[in-house]
Amino acid sequence: MFPGIGRKTAQRLGFHLLDVPRESVHELAHALLDLKDKVGECQRCHNIAQGDLCQICANPGRDPSSVCVVGKVIDVLSFERMGEFNGHYHVLGGVISPLDGISPQDLHMDSLEKRLPDIKELIIATPPSIEGDTTAMFIAQLASALPVKVTRLARGLPMGANLEYADEATLSSAYSGRVDF
Amino acid sequence: MFPGIGRKTAQRLGFHLLDVPRESVHELAHALLDLKDKVGECQRCHNIAQGDLCQICANPGRDPSSVCVVGKVIDVLSFERMGEFNGHYHVLGGVISPLDGISPQDLHMDSLEKRLPDIKELIIATPPSIEGDTTAMFIAQLASALPVKVTRLARGLPMGANLEYADEATLSSAYSGRVDF
Repeated sequence: MFPGIGRKTAQRLGFHLLDVPRESVHELAHALLDLKDKVGECQRCHNIAQGDLCQICANPGRDPSSVCVVGKVIDVLSFERMGEFNGHYHVLGGVISPLDGISPQDLHMDSLEKRLPDIKELIIATPPSIEGDTTAMFIAQLASALPVKVTRLARGLPMGANLEYADEATLSSAYSGRVDF
Repeated sequence: MFPGIGRKTAQRLGFHLLDVPRESVHELAHALLDLKDKVGECQRCHNIAQGDLCQICANPGRDPSSVCVVGKVIDVLSFERMGEFNGHYHVLGGVISPLDGISPQDLHMDSLEKRLPDIKELIIATPPSIEGDTTAMFIAQLASALPVKVTRLARGLPMGANLEYADEATLSSAYSGRVDF
């Protein structure tokens, strides 16, 4: 039922629960019910939320004119961990992937289009893959009719990388995207 | 004696040699001697070379005004595999690393400085690490007195990366280096 938890780990966890005080198990059970009852989707950006808006959309200290578009909710967490972005997000719920039968209609594109007039900079942070790039292109097209500045995350060598082991596509993007020193 | 070859592998290779025809072993032995006798260092860029100049420096079809500075000879191979760069190289022979006792004097900086007047664009491709960046900074300083355009390889998300697993430093460089779509 859980990803990454097989029969043996499940057995170990099960036996552990038998040793744990009754209250702790009660707490866990209630937390699980709360998770399904109380955690929903942000009406604006489709991040996880308790209530109508997520913590980020509801935070008056953040800049709503700068919006970062990501594929999955977990990408919001990565971006927040980085700690340099003070704007809002828009979670698409995936990326365009014809092979998997995912078209723009299956993603939160309509709600993104509705937000565009309020946005000054749209930072596209879809994954650096064919699907991610297709999605990025689709979004750039959506925004092209409006005075929105559209940017995307830089491609290149990751920190600590070794030129020796870098794949050609990465090296090529690092070379073509080279910056003035 | 060889990196990555332990006692067992050495034994397997040794026994394999016993099964191989005498001529093949002779060929291998001569190739090894040739390696040490004939392969030297390029007098201009310190790449491996047979003769005074390496194949790249000796190739009239390549542009000598664009020079890519790398740490190790093996980085030249990576860059060549990419196949988009048509300039020359300069192999430093390592990067500045005070902790390992490697200072600029231990690297091929003097010969780089002598080449600078002939160079239009210097592409710094030292590794994306503290040591690599220190080295890049040192080179940029060397070049600052001359009308050389100094660039460095882009930092960011490598191809096929997953935002979810990207480390903060990489995500941060991808964000701060974001490009117009």
